[in-house]
Amino acid sequence: MKKRGLQNALGSARALLVIVQFTLSSVVCAQHDPWAADKAFLREIFNQSLADGKAYPWLRDLCYGAGHRLSGSPGAEKAVRWAKAVLDTCGLDSVWLQPVLVPRWERGAPEVVEVLGTAKRKNLRLNALALGGSVGTGGKPVVGEVIEVRSWEALDTLGAKTIAGKIVFYNRPMECRHVNTFEAYGGAVDQRVNGPSRAAKYGAIGVLVRSMGLALDDYPHTGSLRYDSAYALIPSAAISTKAAEQLSTLLAKETGVRVSMTLNCRTLPDVLSYNVIGEIRGSKEPDKVILVGGHLDSWDVGHGAHDDGAGCVQSMEVLYLLRRLGYRPRYTLRCVLFMNEENGLRGGLTYANAADEKEELHLFALESDAGGFTPRGFSFDADPEMMDYYYDQVQQFEELLRPYGLLLWRGGSGADISPLRRQKGLLAGLRPDSQRYFDFHHTAADVFEAVHPRELQLGAASMAALVYLIDKYGL
Amino acid sequence: MKKRGLQNALGSARALLVIVQFTLSSVVCAQHDPWAADKAFLREIFNQSLADGKAYPWLRDLCYGAGHRLSGSPGAEKAVRWAKAVLDTCGLDSVWLQPVLVPRWERGAPEVVEVLGTAKRKNLRLNALALGGSVGTGGKPVVGEVIEVRSWEALDTLGAKTIAGKIVFYNRPMECRHVNTFEAYGGAVDQRVNGPSRAAKYGAIGVLVRSMGLALDDYPHTGSLRYDSAYALIPSAAISTKAAEQLSTLLAKETGVRVSMTLNCRTLPDVLSYNVIGEIRGSKEPDKVILVGGHLDSWDVGHGAHDDGAGCVQSMEVLYLLRRLGYRPRYTLRCVLFMNEENGLRGGLTYANAADEKEELHLFALESDAGGFTPRGFSFDADPEMMDYYYDQVQQFEELLRPYGLLLWRGGSGADISPLRRQKGLLAGLRPDSQRYFDFHHTAADVFEAVHPRELQLGAASMAALVYLIDKYGL
Repeated sequence: MKKRGLQNALGSARALLVIVQFTLSSVVCAQHDPWAADKAFLREIFNQSLADGKAYPWLRDLCYGAGHRLSGSPGAEKAVRWAKAVLDTCGLDSVWLQPVLVPRWERGAPEVVEVLGTAKRKNLRLNALALGGSVGTGGKPVVGEVIEVRSWEALDTLGAKTIAGKIVFYNRPMECRHVNTFEAYGGAVDQRVNGPSRAAKYGAIGVLVRSMGLALDDYPHTGSLRYDSAYALIPSAAISTKAAEQLSTLLAKETGVRVSMTLNCRTLPDVLSYNVIGEIRGSKEPDKVILVGGHLDSWDVGHGAHDDGAGCVQSMEVLYLLRRLGYRPRYTLRCVLFMNEENGLRGGLTYANAADEKEELHLFALESDAGGFTPRGFSFDADPEMMDYYYDQVQQFEELLRPYGLLLWRGGSGADISPLRRQKGLLAGLRPDSQRYFDFHHTAADVFEAVHPRELQLGAASMAALVYLIDKYGL
Repeated sequence: MKKRGLQNALGSARALLVIVQFTLSSVVCAQHDPWAADKAFLREIFNQSLADGKAYPWLRDLCYGAGHRLSGSPGAEKAVRWAKAVLDTCGLDSVWLQPVLVPRWERGAPEVVEVLGTAKRKNLRLNALALGGSVGTGGKPVVGEVIEVRSWEALDTLGAKTIAGKIVFYNRPMECRHVNTFEAYGGAVDQRVNGPSRAAKYGAIGVLVRSMGLALDDYPHTGSLRYDSAYALIPSAAISTKAAEQLSTLLAKETGVRVSMTLNCRTLPDVLSYNVIGEIRGSKEPDKVILVGGHLDSWDVGHGAHDDGAGCVQSMEVLYLLRRLGYRPRYTLRCVLFMNEENGLRGGLTYANAADEKEELHLFALESDAGGFTPRGFSFDADPEMMDYYYDQVQQFEELLRPYGLLLWRGGSGADISPLRRQKGLLAGLRPDSQRYFDFHHTAADVFEAVHPRELQLGAASMAALVYLIDKYGL
């Protein structure tokens, strides 16, 4: 029912587009710039965002007011209240909270991971953070010999014979030769996500993972693991890249290197939290939604400024900016700040289920969850049967966006909006410059000061520009 | 004579290109990717630069070995020796020093600029740096009432009646609404360059200029002024943007605000310095040169890391990389580290004059002098009669460069290579992301740590990629 609805809608959008394109071509023949009004409006959007943007001061308030905000934590509660209050001041048509039951994991007292000393050397403390979702060590250390592993093949070859009773240390670095650092992340993060259970399968008693970062530094990067319930749940922590190098160097020199891990983390019962939502009702087709969003939760270190405070305040600013510039949208423009992207995606799943139930058709959804750096463009994704059609439509906008340094390409969109893909609308992700992102991602270094005001504001303006164009011309 | 030489050369290059294009089209028809070898080689360039680049460690050596390096200073001498020594290790065909007579300006003891106190408030020290080339205050303070001016019209309206005997304070901020911060700089730097003499024309006794930066912070930005010898040479200093705001606020509240300026700078006789040059001789047309360069001198604060240590080490790496990857250039590839860009351009002028005398034809010259940030592309410039032709030629490369986030457009190239424009070859500038550049430019904050290793290395690889393509396909 809802899919047929969207297809009808798309049919009429297509018909409209033919007319628009025809009109545009006629105008081109008349030597008039058919985009003149749009160029002027995009200029207004960027002017406003750079000269009097709200994203940056909002980010300061979020970072210093709520701080980090793991799902179910007091920080997350504060962030929900703060975001609702700010959206309430933006002159939107409605602002509400959507209840979401979220997992609650607590780090507890700081973890202690150290290489045990020998007659020749002292204990060596490793900068570490328990992985999100890890079990704790039950109030006492887990101690074992460390086995370094750089590939799944190596792990499987070692097998239970070598691994049982030991601590597996995954030390395959992110591949620095990727220009886009997300590709480097994608090629290494399987160690963090799947490493614990794959080691437990062979009887490992704990896991250490080299942090997902390209810089050689002292910051451990946390992030979620995924236990396979077929195997024992073993305590798992990330160690900083420098600590990984130190440990690896030691393992090359000594046999029987032993590590002691004390993790005080635990999983508590699920708690109630919220997606925070605000919208401007569409003036012509209010039942169709254009969504912009980021995720309000973060890991429990730093401020979660790039991940994903930036995406939240940018999404909020899209609606603020368009309202302030007096734009009356055709479709309903909705800002959604999702809860629990980091360790459950409950916000995104809840939102999409509710949208399906209410038969709200999401024509377009845009997520910003790749940091508050200078925007380089947008990547687009959709159901395969619709993708070519959509991509042809949006490519016409590149001419307008390129002067702002924005390109368009096919690629991923965002985790929170991915469940909306089944509605067969268009999905997109803001793509900021990626070089510095993994210096901060999931670390104590991801603080407000790591975000540059102009870079953040340019991202907000870029998102507003694309939303404006898609709202105006449809898909 | 030399121009005819280049035109003949371009004629044959054009003929060659027709053949190449014909060949390429035939190959396209055969469903083979005509760029396959080039794509693979560009990938090698980026791999090498990201995984084992030299620019970043070289920049560390330059910043910590030579430090800042204003023309004629001991730091500049050290930098010349260092660069020559490093190029000597790069396996080039020749490395040499080209003598350049450079101006020598010294800051002397730190400047003191303060708002004099009143019965109601204390003296207020302003963070200041004398402008490069400014006269000093002769061992004692220059004291005068301050007149704030935000436009040339306002200055002319005030005229000698108001300005004579006073200190003019130029406080027109850089326009934050420009997306490209160099446009904001270009729209405000006239105050620093021409402000002193335009104020002296009306009898001013000193000048303060709001720093050329978009951030509100405590760093004064130095930079050169240009005295008009028709008027008195008056002492001139930049104050930080925060100090400018403070002073402006005070001026709005009080009348007769007086400032005391003590500048200890002076200009000494010209001294001998050098451009540092290294080259790989062309295998087919060695008399034609493709140049890559940056400027080795810097201002006398910070490390001159972004401005322009980055451009120097990137240019050095272009030759190093191509040599290391076994590339045999058709034309002579030359790396030129120019001396004295900041306060005289003597290196660029000397180099171009010598090139003309030796009838060395510069087919292409590429400068990196916009910071070591993520590269966004290249801007191209040439004599108007050649520009369209060249731009058509290089645009074919965008397909190969765009996967690395690089676009091509018309625009400026670089100060040091600008005198080569008369040879009618193609000029270009590397264009890194500009958002953070003016947080560092000409300040004590422009240190090694402000440069990101991956961003720097991507710039070096981008330059090498373009140089390779132009060398291989000609112009």
